[in-house]
Order: sequence, then structure tokens, then C-alpha cells
Amino acid sequence: MAVATYSDVLQAQNILKGVVHCTPVLTSHYLNSQSNAKIFLKCENFQRVGAFKFRGAYHAITRLELSDTKIPIITLSSGNHAQGVALSCRLHGLQAIIVMPEPINPFKLAAVQGYGATVHQVATRGEGDRMVHNLMVQTNGRFVHAFNDPHVIAGQGTATLEFLESHPDLDVLLAPVGGGGLLSGACLAAHGVNPAIKVYACEPALALDAIYSIQKNRIGPPSRTDTIAEGLRTTLGDLTLTILGKHLEGFFIVEEHEIVQAMKIAFERLKIVIEPSSAVALAPVLRGESALQGKRVGVIVTGGNIDLLHFCDVCRKETY
Amino acid sequence: MAVATYSDVLQAQNILKGVVHCTPVLTSHYLNSQSNAKIFLKCENFQRVGAFKFRGAYHAITRLELSDTKIPIITLSSGNHAQGVALSCRLHGLQAIIVMPEPINPFKLAAVQGYGATVHQVATRGEGDRMVHNLMVQTNGRFVHAFNDPHVIAGQGTATLEFLESHPDLDVLLAPVGGGGLLSGACLAAHGVNPAIKVYACEPALALDAIYSIQKNRIGPPSRTDTIAEGLRTTLGDLTLTILGKHLEGFFIVEEHEIVQAMKIAFERLKIVIEPSSAVALAPVLRGESALQGKRVGVIVTGGNIDLLHFCDVCRKETY
Repeated sequence: MAVATYSDVLQAQNILKGVVHCTPVLTSHYLNSQSNAKIFLKCENFQRVGAFKFRGAYHAITRLELSDTKIPIITLSSGNHAQGVALSCRLHGLQAIIVMPEPINPFKLAAVQGYGATVHQVATRGEGDRMVHNLMVQTNGRFVHAFNDPHVIAGQGTATLEFLESHPDLDVLLAPVGGGGLLSGACLAAHGVNPAIKVYACEPALALDAIYSIQKNRIGPPSRTDTIAEGLRTTLGDLTLTILGKHLEGFFIVEEHEIVQAMKIAFERLKIVIEPSSAVALAPVLRGESALQGKRVGVIVTGGNIDLLHFCDVCRKETY
Repeated sequence: MAVATYSDVLQAQNILKGVVHCTPVLTSHYLNSQSNAKIFLKCENFQRVGAFKFRGAYHAITRLELSDTKIPIITLSSGNHAQGVALSCRLHGLQAIIVMPEPINPFKLAAVQGYGATVHQVATRGEGDRMVHNLMVQTNGRFVHAFNDPHVIAGQGTATLEFLESHPDLDVLLAPVGGGGLLSGACLAAHGVNPAIKVYACEPALALDAIYSIQKNRIGPPSRTDTIAEGLRTTLGDLTLTILGKHLEGFFIVEEHEIVQAMKIAFERLKIVIEPSSAVALAPVLRGESALQGKRVGVIVTGGNIDLLHFCDVCRKETY
């Protein structure tokens, strides 16, 4: 499969024009003073479906150029990609079949069903893979991977392209890394616009795998995946490994208590709701990472899909 | 005291340029479908100090044109105006003296003190009035009223002016009413730009006073003031009564459970944190008020200052 390029991101932006929200960029004196830097937050939590994932899903599905609307779109996701695919299919008049492995957030399940998707709940990711395989054979459907797909990567890159159109003079860009789709798109877009921008991956200490995979240039699983940032528990794919290995400046590793703290600060100071995966990219700002000092720092706030009561439970816990 | 005019709002905008945040306007397919209207949210919860109040306070303090920076600025507020005055004074190099009547939110107290203001806590509003009087005599300070001041009103009007600059074709504007400072400024700005815009006041059923005061053209107290929207418990002033009586199209009365519901929906669907007073202006959208059907509706989201744990407590309560 071809690796995505900057020109794919530009093309994706044309396709997504008028479909995606052009999300606002927020600034905060508080964040600037905490970090001794100028901080700009690209708020993809305000994107349709509440996360950047809609960009990649919509773009990839458009690029399939299906002649027959009876061909279903199949994906495997319990997270924001599921919602992105479900809404994109509804907008395209296509049937979405979403295989959701446990744990399944009832809030996300309801949203996906609300978009008219057919949902298959499975116990494990392995079981999910098998079900996807069977569904592909049975339905002749088309699979849209959550991140290891050049069209998905290009779609996610449009968030950064938009960011740099409104804020062309960023020195540094921070984004969380899970499968690496958003971050790969960010790298392509940022270095297409300005090769001097330093792009950092933010990874939870309890789901460290991207950092080692890139060091060894071989995809490896994390030693543990019990981070609260559920969207970042996955490993890289071959496409994202290739792109990230070429473009990344470095990593910031983030502890669990920092994730919760960043979510709280987003609520109390910034008045925005961010999910734990997003908080992972805000945490290095709050601890005043030395690489950020004096710089103009863009942070991609990836999503805001967290159940209200779960959010309250997490914020109350003394252990964080 | 002179009533504020549209040209005062224009002048205020010049003074506030580069000082206030130009806050983003959010849209939501969910809100559009709930209301059968096109909804635009002017997010003053992202304003400095977390509320529109910074606009009026900064403008009024600038317009005092104090030659002696030793003259303190005095105000009476336990809410967002206190923070607005405290930050404005810090930026002007002036001393703020804030008299705060109970109940005092520790979060807001800390914020005010963090801006370097001197705080006097008092048990009642009556006691606060007396203390303000004494402080004025002792210090020769200048008082900045929270809403019944033409410069404050003009400053608040800049939120609407900015809103209409980015969204000139609004048919309807909704804002909450407490003392009426924001709403008066909104009326002046909206009708200065386009006299056809219909401006509605949103008032809690548990703090109804503005609606009766305007009907009788005489300021009257609310029958009860136990609404959760603490910022809206106050009565109008003579300036705001005059302006609102001339400009308002009508009122939407909002129940307590609707306020809580709107806060929850802001969190879950819009990914923004809004305080109860702001939720009062969102509630008529959520219940699909007939006057809004098919219209382009602007809602001023006034602020986002709510303590996280208090927010969680309120959202958990089964009674709402």
C-alpha cells in the first residue's frame, strides 16, 4: 500500500471542505504562563462526532468511489473511528457495519447506532478480527482501517493543514500517538508546509509502544495497556511506523496522574471537555517541558468524547 | 447617568481590541436538529476570566482615565464581575478592592486573589453595600457597578458586535438576563447593526423579576432567588430597565431541570463547559421554542465558571 504524502493531504482538504467543521484555535494566558511558551490549541473536540476521526473516515470512504451503494463499509473499532465511519456512511448513503470489541462505552455505542450503523459486539479484538474477516467474505464489503490507511492518514492531516493556515508560524506541534494516524497526517502536513516545524509524539507511560517501535523500526506491542487514555492503547501500523520514523523530532512520555490533571485543567481553566487521549498532548505543556520554552507550540486536542459520569468519577479519585 | 448608545459600543470595541479574546462561534448539527433552526454559539466562556464580564469591567476602568494609580477600584460582587475587575485592575496597574457577599465560591475567591485584588468577605449584600460605602469614603476609590453603568454596558455590547461581524445574518439573539448589563449591550449592538434582529431575554423561573420589571416599567425584586443560575439572581438597574424596555422582543422562562439538562448537553454534545447562567440561554434552543423555528439564532454563552466538583454533584442529582 502506498504511503500517504503531503499532496494527499491537500487533496483530502478539498474533499473535506464544507463537510468537516473548521475547528477553532484557543489560546490561554494560563497555559502560556505554565509553559513559558505561546500555546495554541486546535480544538478537534469540536469536530463532528467529537473527534478528528471523522476527517480520515470521511475522506477514506469518499476515495473508495463505490459505484454500488449496497456495498457495506466495515470497520473494527470501539472508539471515535467507529463514530467517524458511521456518520460518514450516513452522509454517503452507505451501510456501515461496525465490529466493536469490549470494553464498549454505552455512550459511543448509542452514538454509532444513532447514525444508523449495524453493530456487532465482540468480547476480544481477536474475535473482532475474525468477525471482520467473515463479514468481508459474506457481504463483499470494504474495510476502512482506523489508522493504517493512506487515505485515513491524509484525512487526519487536514486538521494540521487547517491549523497552519490560521497559525502559520508554529515552531512545535504536539499530538498524542496511538495507532499513529493523526500524528502521521500531522507530520505530512506540517513538513509539507514548513520542514522546520518540530513534531513531538505524546505517549502514555502505561501504553508505551510507539517510542520503542520507532527506535527499533519494528512494530512491537506495549508492555502494558491499562492507561486511562483508551484511544492510545493500540500499536502502530506499517504505514504510520514509516512516516513517524522519518518525521518525528521526539517523544514526551506522560503519566496517568498528569492525564487526569490535564483533563481537570481543561475543564476548569479552558472550559473545554477533552478525553484522556487528548489530555496526553496537553500534559507536556502543563509540566513546562524544556523543549517548548519560548516557542510557539501547537497542540492538537484530538477529541472530547468522555462520558460525563465517568469523567466525574475519574476527577474525584484521590489516587490521581 | 447617561444611557449607553451604539456608538459607545463601537468606541468600547476600539478600546478592547487586542485585550479581550475574540471568542469563537461554535455550531452543532445536534442543536440544529433539536431546534429546527440554525444555531450559533458565541463562546464567551472562552473569554478572559472565563466570562464576558471582563469586557465591561476593562472598558469601564479604562474610561475612568485615572491620573493617579493609587486610587483603588472598588466593586461589590461574588461572581464573574469580581474577576473581571480584578484582572482589569492588574492590567491597568491599579489596586482592586472587591467586597464579596456570601455565598462565596472558593474557586472564584482564589481567582480574584490570584489577580492581586484585596477581598473583603461579608455575610450579606446589605452589609456589602455598607462596606462599599465606607471603603469609598476611606480610600477615595472609584466604584464600578456590575451592570448599571453605561461603560460596563457598552463593554458587554462588544461581544454581540463581534458576533455580528462574523455572523451578520442572525435573525434572533438569545442571552440570559440578571442585572441586564450583557443583554442591554447586546440590544444596543444588535439594533445598531440591524434593527430587525429580535432579541430575547432568557430568565430562570426561580428568579423571575426582569420580565415583571419591564412589564411594569419599575424595578421589582424576584419572588424567589433560589435558582442554580446564581449570576441571574439580581434585579435590573435603571439604565438596563430603560434599554431593555425599548429593545426586547420577549422573554423565555426556563425551569431548573432545563438549566441542568443544558449544562449536561453542553458537556456531552458540544464539549464545552458552561455555567448555569449560560445554560439558561441554551435551554430555549433545546426545547425547540416556536419563535426560533427556521431562524438563524445566535446564543451568547456567557461564561464557564463552575467548580468541577459542584458541576459533577449537580449533574448526578436524580431530582433534575
